[in-house]
Amino acid sequence: MKELRQVTVLGLGLLGSSITLVVSKGLSGVKAVGYSHRRSTRQKARKLDIADEVFDDIGESVADADIVILATPICTFEQIFAEIAPFLKAGCIVTDVGSTKVLAHRWARKGLGSGVCYIGSHPIAGSEQRGVEFARDDLFYGAKCILTTGRTVNAAALKMLQKFWAELGCSVSVMTATKHDKILAAVSHLPHATAAGLINASDDDELQFAGKGFIDTSRVASGPANVWADIFYTNSGNVCRGIDKTISQLNKLRDAIKAEDKNKIEKLLETARSKRAKLIKYKMKNKEIM
Amino acid sequence: MKELRQVTVLGLGLLGSSITLVVSKGLSGVKAVGYSHRRSTRQKARKLDIADEVFDDIGESVADADIVILATPICTFEQIFAEIAPFLKAGCIVTDVGSTKVLAHRWARKGLGSGVCYIGSHPIAGSEQRGVEFARDDLFYGAKCILTTGRTVNAAALKMLQKFWAELGCSVSVMTATKHDKILAAVSHLPHATAAGLINASDDDELQFAGKGFIDTSRVASGPANVWADIFYTNSGNVCRGIDKTISQLNKLRDAIKAEDKNKIEKLLETARSKRAKLIKYKMKNKEIM
Repeated sequence: MKELRQVTVLGLGLLGSSITLVVSKGLSGVKAVGYSHRRSTRQKARKLDIADEVFDDIGESVADADIVILATPICTFEQIFAEIAPFLKAGCIVTDVGSTKVLAHRWARKGLGSGVCYIGSHPIAGSEQRGVEFARDDLFYGAKCILTTGRTVNAAALKMLQKFWAELGCSVSVMTATKHDKILAAVSHLPHATAAGLINASDDDELQFAGKGFIDTSRVASGPANVWADIFYTNSGNVCRGIDKTISQLNKLRDAIKAEDKNKIEKLLETARSKRAKLIKYKMKNKEIM
Repeated sequence: MKELRQVTVLGLGLLGSSITLVVSKGLSGVKAVGYSHRRSTRQKARKLDIADEVFDDIGESVADADIVILATPICTFEQIFAEIAPFLKAGCIVTDVGSTKVLAHRWARKGLGSGVCYIGSHPIAGSEQRGVEFARDDLFYGAKCILTTGRTVNAAALKMLQKFWAELGCSVSVMTATKHDKILAAVSHLPHATAAGLINASDDDELQFAGKGFIDTSRVASGPANVWADIFYTNSGNVCRGIDKTISQLNKLRDAIKAEDKNKIEKLLETARSKRAKLIKYKMKNKEIM
């Protein structure tokens, strides 16, 4: 396997700066380079010493990189691929930390040269805090990271990227971008959509009586609206199908309640209860939850 | 105010047996009487010593009570009111711990004699554990308890009941049954409906990838299906209206995603985010959450 000497992260928010931090402090022999299009972020990053070097120019920042990681909003990828393509070394691996993957692969195929290998990365980590000042060297410890492949995959590049995320503390799995986006729609994007729908259907004067149930059910909707708009926009087919399935289930429940069919209501609720019980049992068996 | 000498609890599940436990151990001079229609529950209750006396006969159990508390599923109330009415003392207060109130008030008006006063109680407490073996004397400590009034209210009875729940550790408020059911539909019943809809719309093989987001968003759907079927059945109008409002919000979001209208998607998500931020700020100010 080729030796990893430099990782460049584009975008120094919580995720991006946490990557440069753990690479610069924890991966000996690997140079951590950062770039942000915001001058104030670059200044903060230098002051906080979260990378070995922070560049003012995006082209210079990627020129010597073995791995380039986009840690910017998904909808910026297409433009950034075009911008960095002329500067990348042959054999460079380009990846990202975005939450949807099919479009990223499509943009990479169009925008990056053939001497460069794109593989998607989705480290399932984060916190409600945002920005370089919250960079943490343990952010990826114990997190799942899904690597995604397109039509073709470079085995050596995949191996290097798997090793990289594993060294950051991630449990790494690999699947196609198509499968990734379908699964994430179900387990992540759809909960966000229903949480937002639930809140938007409630009156402020009723919400003051909300207890733990409402607060938990709606928690994910506190995520940043611009990031989630990008996610829904770039996974529109899967998210729309998921919303339609949820609406259909809500219609079933509403019809049973309207018909005062207590057996039917109980049956629908019991299906949900036992599906969740099975999920929790699986997660506990895998020690993912305690 | 009349002196409180005996409280009788009908139904010795988690809530019912926790009430008899705290009354028998913590309220000096007040006798805690329990009744369950299940022989095995009565035996367990006696063995665990969670009440001063457990009766085999429902009529005998309520005969000397100043307060009778129904802690059985809501849909049993109509029958129990008819069953106990002949045995109640004049001036007895009848209440319950059910999650919906309008029907309970209607059933009480029909089934209880005029010498008896019905006031609804909804202590917002509980746990995922069920049954007399989980009785806890701190279950109500710090919990909200909403008392509900119907067309008329006996001021002395209301005062005695407020004092009773406050002595159990509750923060007590009073509203009409109609208002109670409308509010609880929004903050409790609707989250349950959307959580169940979300789970029922997901495939088991996708669910194994679920993370903290999905698990929190779906948590409430693990509640017992029979209890929740009763809640939906007895608050059908409000719950159906709430489901319709949620479906309408989900349709809006789906349409914006389908139209690839990123501004509209972001606007809908930002509305939800800022509504929830306002809610959390309010709850923290009131020290309801930390």
